[in-house]
Amino acid sequence: MKANQTVVFKNKPVIIGSYSIVGPKEGKGNFGPYFNYVLKDDCYGEDSYEKAEKKMLVSAIVGAIDDAKIKPNDVNLLLAGDLLNQIISSSYAARNFNFAFLGLFGACSTMAESMIVGASLINGKLLDTVVCSTGSHFSTAERQFRFPLELGNQRPPTSQWTVTGAGACVISAKGHGPRISMATFGKVIDFGVTDVNDMGAAMAPAAMDTMLAHFRDTKTGPDDYDLIITGDLGKLGSEILIDLMEDQGIKLGLNYNDCGQMYYSRNQNTLSGGSGCGCSATVFNSFVMEKLRKGEYKKVLYMPTGALMSTTATQQGESIPGICHALVIENDLSDEEVKKKKKSKSKNMKS
Amino acid sequence: MKANQTVVFKNKPVIIGSYSIVGPKEGKGNFGPYFNYVLKDDCYGEDSYEKAEKKMLVSAIVGAIDDAKIKPNDVNLLLAGDLLNQIISSSYAARNFNFAFLGLFGACSTMAESMIVGASLINGKLLDTVVCSTGSHFSTAERQFRFPLELGNQRPPTSQWTVTGAGACVISAKGHGPRISMATFGKVIDFGVTDVNDMGAAMAPAAMDTMLAHFRDTKTGPDDYDLIITGDLGKLGSEILIDLMEDQGIKLGLNYNDCGQMYYSRNQNTLSGGSGCGCSATVFNSFVMEKLRKGEYKKVLYMPTGALMSTTATQQGESIPGICHALVIENDLSDEEVKKKKKSKSKNMKS
Repeated sequence: MKANQTVVFKNKPVIIGSYSIVGPKEGKGNFGPYFNYVLKDDCYGEDSYEKAEKKMLVSAIVGAIDDAKIKPNDVNLLLAGDLLNQIISSSYAARNFNFAFLGLFGACSTMAESMIVGASLINGKLLDTVVCSTGSHFSTAERQFRFPLELGNQRPPTSQWTVTGAGACVISAKGHGPRISMATFGKVIDFGVTDVNDMGAAMAPAAMDTMLAHFRDTKTGPDDYDLIITGDLGKLGSEILIDLMEDQGIKLGLNYNDCGQMYYSRNQNTLSGGSGCGCSATVFNSFVMEKLRKGEYKKVLYMPTGALMSTTATQQGESIPGICHALVIENDLSDEEVKKKKKSKSKNMKS
Repeated sequence: MKANQTVVFKNKPVIIGSYSIVGPKEGKGNFGPYFNYVLKDDCYGEDSYEKAEKKMLVSAIVGAIDDAKIKPNDVNLLLAGDLLNQIISSSYAARNFNFAFLGLFGACSTMAESMIVGASLINGKLLDTVVCSTGSHFSTAERQFRFPLELGNQRPPTSQWTVTGAGACVISAKGHGPRISMATFGKVIDFGVTDVNDMGAAMAPAAMDTMLAHFRDTKTGPDDYDLIITGDLGKLGSEILIDLMEDQGIKLGLNYNDCGQMYYSRNQNTLSGGSGCGCSATVFNSFVMEKLRKGEYKKVLYMPTGALMSTTATQQGESIPGICHALVIENDLSDEEVKKKKKSKSKNMKS
């Protein structure tokens, strides 16, 4: 029999800090009120979009360390990656810090990949504290993967809008906060989609594969989670995932949603929704973390998705493989504590 | 005080299989007799160099699984990365297998990075068996990072020759073979080198930094290892490392060498030597593994190095940061067994 894809973190590594920084357009989107910092200028004071992307990663890492109330010297390792060739945003961001670095590439699934590796190192008592981070920028992704921005190309309805933003979290062996209890490693899945303007369709089969593996390995189903959230399948891709899962006899209900599909408001003209490493990274490190910390969510299945193609692969006629890694994150609050938080919240609302 | 960069693997994950495949030029180099397979044609029967690179990775992974005498279904996870944009060689290679995948990017340090993450997962008892792999191809790297091959550009004396080759190893919780006992995570180090034709100089400071951290954390010195081997500093870079270490009061002796500097023979016109992910990966998974298995080496410090730049970063005036991760690998033979192996060897020589 095939080995399990899911691992259980017995020591339940804790997410002790998180931070999100986004561009002006993202700030006006549906998660606007949840982000830690919204840029006024998407160049972030730099002379290139690539340097702005790097600077967002640096800010996210610094912000997460601050939020965790630790010092940079307490950090053992940074785990990060991004969409740019040779993940320069992450590597050059790492140059600013005096801790070790592991570069990762899982395309838009990178937030999950960094958290899985980080949680594994901490669960195994090899390290005490790691920072996980990723980000993306509309203008760097657009010109690297598609067309020069100046061209003003038309965008088909299946296309998604790369999120300008970066997220980071600090995972530690001790402290308080949501805990990572399990992870499911994803396989590379390719259903033969070749349209680079339809990433959602390319990634949905990978999301299905990982979700099925997770439910099988853990003997759980959709109802066992307060929130099941995929990365950046977008409006079309998340519909495809719902269909694919239904074909497998599993009905995804109201507790399922997709970061990309939720990201922008209807009038923002982003067609199929948000995408990019920054998409699920900024949603997780703002909205999802806040709800976990407040006890509004008890158990979340976080499933960022990635499309693993490059322009070279596409030019050579290859289809687009997808990948999806999953993490189970649970809040560490007792029912008592959740009740208290709810009471204090309703008090605040009255005042 | 700054946290340690070195982790100790108490359960000592075992390297139960390894495989190396190289191009025709590499087969004629100094390690020729040690490689498992030498291609006659560096296109490997494919219609692009990129597809040939991917196919080498697939062959290396299959070869290592065979060498480990296990079945593909016994493998939990593939950890791989390469130099191509969005690590397509690794991702597309992973599509051929029915196990999970983590994509990594550490440039030419990727073999070490994959082995460190793999060993960590096994040491922590999260997984049983993983495959670690990486590779590179002269013609894909040259045209992606430098100039079209057809241009026939002159190469300065500091330049290195990207190795056409791929290596893979299987790491497991049980079985016999060399064991991974420790790892030192590297930091991103940048001494301001901007010459893309002098990668050795860009990476040497990172090798120094990791080597110093390793000796400091483990209270060891050069004499504690039968072999200290860096990745692809090349002739110039390894001289720089020796100088840098001497400035720090540590003398590297005859047990230190560099895969890139040793790779090709003098008449092969590779100037400063070999480079690329495939350089240290093929040397480790052939020559070094054979010597460890035979008991000729008892304890090896394996230190692949990577240069973390991209063409975009260079065009935007950035210098080239380097990184180096280190692994300690020890043979699991008793003195008795080593003696036996030596005896049987001298018998073979007589016959």
